[in-house]
Amino acid sequence: MKQHFDIVIVGGGIIGCAIGYYLAKENTSVAVLESQSIGGKSTGAAAGMLGAHSEYKEFKQLYPFARSSQLLYQELYDEIKELTGIDFEMKRGGLLKLAFSASEKEEMASIYKLPAIEWLNREEAKEKVSTLTTSIIGAAFLKEDVHVTPIAVCNGFSTGAQTLGAEIFEYTNVSEITKQDSQYKIKTSRGDFTAAQVVIASGVWSNYFFQNMGLTNRIIPVKGECIAAMNEEIPLKHSIFHDQHYIVPRNNGQLIIGATKKWNDWNEKPTLEGIESVIKKAKEMIPAIKDMKMTNCWAGLRPQTFDGNPFIGEHPEMKGIYFAAGHQRNGILLAPATGKMVRDLLLGNPVDKKWIEAFKVERSISKSTELEEVKL
Amino acid sequence: MKQHFDIVIVGGGIIGCAIGYYLAKENTSVAVLESQSIGGKSTGAAAGMLGAHSEYKEFKQLYPFARSSQLLYQELYDEIKELTGIDFEMKRGGLLKLAFSASEKEEMASIYKLPAIEWLNREEAKEKVSTLTTSIIGAAFLKEDVHVTPIAVCNGFSTGAQTLGAEIFEYTNVSEITKQDSQYKIKTSRGDFTAAQVVIASGVWSNYFFQNMGLTNRIIPVKGECIAAMNEEIPLKHSIFHDQHYIVPRNNGQLIIGATKKWNDWNEKPTLEGIESVIKKAKEMIPAIKDMKMTNCWAGLRPQTFDGNPFIGEHPEMKGIYFAAGHQRNGILLAPATGKMVRDLLLGNPVDKKWIEAFKVERSISKSTELEEVKL
Amino acid sequence: MKQHFDIVIVGGGIIGCAIGYYLAKENTSVAVLESQSIGGKSTGAAAGMLGAHSEYKEFKQLYPFARSSQLLYQELYDEIKELTGIDFEMKRGGLLKLAFSASEKEEMASIYKLPAIEWLNREEAKEKVSTLTTSIIGAAFLKEDVHVTPIAVCNGFSTGAQTLGAEIFEYTNVSEITKQDSQYKIKTSRGDFTAAQVVIASGVWSNYFFQNMGLTNRIIPVKGECIAAMNEEIPLKHSIFHDQHYIVPRNNGQLIIGATKKWNDWNEKPTLEGIESVIKKAKEMIPAIKDMKMTNCWAGLRPQTFDGNPFIGEHPEMKGIYFAAGHQRNGILLAPATGKMVRDLLLGNPVDKKWIEAFKVERSISKSTELEEVKL
Amino acid sequence: MKQHFDIVIVGGGIIGCAIGYYLAKENTSVAVLESQSIGGKSTGAAAGMLGAHSEYKEFKQLYPFARSSQLLYQELYDEIKELTGIDFEMKRGGLLKLAFSASEKEEMASIYKLPAIEWLNREEAKEKVSTLTTSIIGAAFLKEDVHVTPIAVCNGFSTGAQTLGAEIFEYTNVSEITKQDSQYKIKTSRGDFTAAQVVIASGVWSNYFFQNMGLTNRIIPVKGECIAAMNEEIPLKHSIFHDQHYIVPRNNGQLIIGATKKWNDWNEKPTLEGIESVIKKAKEMIPAIKDMKMTNCWAGLRPQTFDGNPFIGEHPEMKGIYFAAGHQRNGILLAPATGKMVRDLLLGNPVDKKWIEAFKVERSISKSTELEEVKL
Repeated sequence: MKQHFDIVIVGGGIIGCAIGYYLAKENTSVAVLESQSIGGKSTGAAAGMLGAHSEYKEFKQLYPFARSSQLLYQELYDEIKELTGIDFEMKRGGLLKLAFSASEKEEMASIYKLPAIEWLNREEAKEKVSTLTTSIIGAAFLKEDVHVTPIAVCNGFSTGAQTLGAEIFEYTNVSEITKQDSQYKIKTSRGDFTAAQVVIASGVWSNYFFQNMGLTNRIIPVKGECIAAMNEEIPLKHSIFHDQHYIVPRNNGQLIIGATKKWNDWNEKPTLEGIESVIKKAKEMIPAIKDMKMTNCWAGLRPQTFDGNPFIGEHPEMKGIYFAAGHQRNGILLAPATGKMVRDLLLGNPVDKKWIEAFKVERSISKSTELEEVKL
Repeated sequence: MKQHFDIVIVGGGIIGCAIGYYLAKENTSVAVLESQSIGGKSTGAAAGMLGAHSEYKEFKQLYPFARSSQLLYQELYDEIKELTGIDFEMKRGGLLKLAFSASEKEEMASIYKLPAIEWLNREEAKEKVSTLTTSIIGAAFLKEDVHVTPIAVCNGFSTGAQTLGAEIFEYTNVSEITKQDSQYKIKTSRGDFTAAQVVIASGVWSNYFFQNMGLTNRIIPVKGECIAAMNEEIPLKHSIFHDQHYIVPRNNGQLIIGATKKWNDWNEKPTLEGIESVIKKAKEMIPAIKDMKMTNCWAGLRPQTFDGNPFIGEHPEMKGIYFAAGHQRNGILLAPATGKMVRDLLLGNPVDKKWIEAFKVERSISKSTELEEVKL
Repeated sequence: MKQHFDIVIVGGGIIGCAIGYYLAKENTSVAVLESQSIGGKSTGAAAGMLGAHSEYKEFKQLYPFARSSQLLYQELYDEIKELTGIDFEMKRGGLLKLAFSASEKEEMASIYKLPAIEWLNREEAKEKVSTLTTSIIGAAFLKEDVHVTPIAVCNGFSTGAQTLGAEIFEYTNVSEITKQDSQYKIKTSRGDFTAAQVVIASGVWSNYFFQNMGLTNRIIPVKGECIAAMNEEIPLKHSIFHDQHYIVPRNNGQLIIGATKKWNDWNEKPTLEGIESVIKKAKEMIPAIKDMKMTNCWAGLRPQTFDGNPFIGEHPEMKGIYFAAGHQRNGILLAPATGKMVRDLLLGNPVDKKWIEAFKVERSISKSTELEEVKL
Repeated sequence: MKQHFDIVIVGGGIIGCAIGYYLAKENTSVAVLESQSIGGKSTGAAAGMLGAHSEYKEFKQLYPFARSSQLLYQELYDEIKELTGIDFEMKRGGLLKLAFSASEKEEMASIYKLPAIEWLNREEAKEKVSTLTTSIIGAAFLKEDVHVTPIAVCNGFSTGAQTLGAEIFEYTNVSEITKQDSQYKIKTSRGDFTAAQVVIASGVWSNYFFQNMGLTNRIIPVKGECIAAMNEEIPLKHSIFHDQHYIVPRNNGQLIIGATKKWNDWNEKPTLEGIESVIKKAKEMIPAIKDMKMTNCWAGLRPQTFDGNPFIGEHPEMKGIYFAAGHQRNGILLAPATGKMVRDLLLGNPVDKKWIEAFKVERSISKSTELEEVKL
């Protein structure tokens, strides 16, 4: 088994696989090491809304980065399908962000004044989705927000990367990364790997590498619990969103319903209480959902950073060590732009200074005056 | 394929299989016809509490029948294990019936004065189950109530019957039963069967045969929704019961939690609302349950009769046609006694007059003055 | 509950739902009665290849009917998506029908001379699918064959029909249909329905109604067992087919692999032997499949008729009773054309004489000289 | 969150939980850290045969250790049930080890001369299990071999340990263990723990700690793939064994069928080929198994050492660091004895010298002249 590569990526979620894919396209020698199975953790738990607009409040000056990533999905869809046969189900239809009160409407003012976003009063909203609760006063209609099937995107990146020459090692836990001459040695359960450049893309599990490499950066898990339900009766073409909870229609009548938000909870199991609470919230948005059949439940850990921005950049001292982690609830949306940015950083291509500055590993709370702190 | 038998049983739930088993032990020529798979409907949905005492209020003068059935399980356990290798998990430990108020305690007065039943105050109850809510005032402790795994009992009867010479036909839907000379012709999806005696043991689906054979009897489905959760933390040796909801510990830390009660609902799917409500009720009994992981959900249709008693007996005019259906939420408990009674009826053995009278098919509301009407 | 309709359809598989959909579009009063859940039997078990060409040999003079149905899917895709939000995943990419020997190549001669079908030698075939076995001599490439997700099509028809005013009754078993004055009474587990016109669309379970209505027609179940496997490594854009076995790539890297062919087997469970044999066959086509992970297994009953054509038409004596059953392995492909044809028959619209003749209920072996008998 | 303990155990499989249980009984301050969920890896994948005799050949002079562990299960069964309510299903009935040829019979000579083991010729064997293949010449009947449900034993140890005061931390990945003053610091994803004594019980994943602590010991994963099938027809009271494959009846008619043996395979997914091969082997033992329904499939990694013995003992230099890993296919059987031995080592109780010598961490191939090398 060949275990030397130019570049080794630690983490086979959607961020690691996207980086692997963009690097494989450049004919680099690249491997992805995943401790469990590809996309099996937070990626597989995500709903897949590419909410550049619905998450606008969170993005602030990062909106251009998020929007560029959203646009990348357009070309990726055909590219991945052509290369691998995988269709990651780019669902259009847009998203309705509900307002139950005048103050909720007001909070969204900044959003529904954007182009391609429209305010609907209750009657207009119910014309779009007749089963919506009558308790709303209206909804912002985000026409251009699409959603994808996250695990399919991740498998698309992974299968695509392999087709282009990359290697994927599942069930390969990285325990240590040490400098060895001019390269790095990556110790794993199945033996050592070596590489000139290493990218840490391990979501909340990146903390260990921060510590191990002398950094005080920290990523907090924010656990989200979701269910899937079978919708065999009511037509639903739009995603519905309120107060960080959502109902997302997938192909075949399956609805993804989520999500709780449990601060610093490392337990990856969905709890009875979590399930109870997402059902309750979903019923508030679409009462008829109460009669649907539950088909699955799960949980995932969102990697939260102190300022709401991911860490994307090189280790300040250890040259050749890069991080790409901490994408919060927006890992699916930001994966393509992150993959491209890391590719450019590693290959020495030009990268937008603003993004380098906003995402750099060595930023700290004091330095982030420009970035409003996210209320976690 | 041999399709003539002395006796054909229509319905492969626990009632049909119990009858098949007791008849096979007598070397009769017997077949069980099941439209789907053995035990796949209400039987598989049941929790398996053999609640002769917890359901005492419902049983009234039928308590002796229920109690005799409960006792039959003792001998069946070894018999089935020896014959088939199947262990249907006779779990002892008893049941705590919670009282949240003085009036609830009073309602149970008739129960906890029975021998082998003990009233526990809050402290005593929490000594038994330390995770019980502090909101109770106490609990009746039904020491002798055991529970079994219903699908295992049903498979035990079915495999046992086959070992003793009976034949089981799954996926065999009976569409019509007609008199033909001195016997009956049973039309099915896989051809006709013939038999001298026929037993209808189809739960709520027996209605069709009542109608088809000139009877006005009717069985109403009372849908119950349940979940299973994984308990990896708290010791739980007793079943917990309150207000028709329960938490039943199975082998391996699995908890069965149920059940809703939806009148005349034929839909066999568990709904989101049903799941939400059983979680809510379970948390009221044991708050720590909120952190457990849901592993499954399902629904079943309890066959309800007008007076709460099953129909067990011969058709008043069509000699050789028998019914054994309508066991409400007590089908698992009553299966052995029902199997034995039907065996005796078919073979001409003596049967307790009181039971014949209480369960006879041709009883009617007016006749049932002795039997208090069940509030459905 | 309203239980009178102009038209009642018995059977909620893809055929019944397609008929319901086309009738609902005409503003008729229509209900679909399904004994279990919508699409839960043979429909859900199908792989969804719309093989107008791959099944060409079977279709013969019926090729135009099959081809018209395949073309209907094009417009249905957008129509259903617009109406219900359901995307039934119309996957293009075509199908490779493998030949392992000169004689197998020869057998396909009639197919690969059709337009839009191309013969590929081994090298050309492996250029399309690099993981194909080297044991083939080549493959017919059926460029235009697409595949859909059957349960999604069925749910699309069902949700669409409901949106247009039809009613769907799940868990509603029909036990008898009798003439009552100028209409029919349909007895079910949840009470009687009445309708002027009734369509029997119950697949293999239609036999009972044939018998009950004085017809000798018979449908034989041909059981097929399938598995699903997760493909995370090899790109696969085309379906692969050989000797009635297939590998069909779905969205998200899921492969559908089937199917056995068990004559007159009513048992709906997939067996260990069936699973073993489909794995063996799949490995012969694509050896690398051996390392994939199995994610599911199931079985379905294909409704086979004596001459390979479905029964679509009115009962010869009982006016207003129609049949639409017996679509063999091609129910998914033929559903739209069947739905349209039954709509036209019921509403008195003109229907192609050739098709009426080919599919009529009262045809018999002797009459079917034009139709070559299918070797079952 | 309290993160200091006297003893920290790394690994929440059956070995780690058994150690935690025996230590908690002594009122020590103990925590178990598990990177995923309790029993979720090799433990959950095991069949649970306590094969002190069927694995006799492998045990050699370790037979007394294995036998003592088997006997410990007798008392543990009641103890765990009383303490936690968990019944880990101690199934008796014994095991039939099949011989298909005279040479296979001869190979077993050493076994069936042990007391409590009986040679059965073909007729006698088929009297016990009528569905056995007629191709055997006979079978050794190991009357006393029992089997348990491994995940239930593991949950029993874990829940029991918690009840007695231990703490269990799931989803807590240990990345490093370093000496810090007089104790050890254990770095994990959820912060640092400290302890005076640390036990590494991480199965194949212990390799990292060996390396990290300057040891050349190595554990090789031997992957085993299994399936579960539903047996609704044939009585089966005994486990069946041949050529390292087995059929084990569980409660409720479930059969556990395994297992493949893939050397140095770290991938934890069951493959199509693995499933195919265990079905094939099972059919050779009991042909009727071919008609059963598959209900599940999985894989686990058996931790293999160079000489077939586990490593149980203290690190030769780092006092206070212990290992308990490398139990091959016998982790379930050996868990109680291992738990007790590690407890005694940590608490300074006397331990049998023979076992200390046989299992010590610093033994090497050259030193192990007494121990015959296992042919892997």
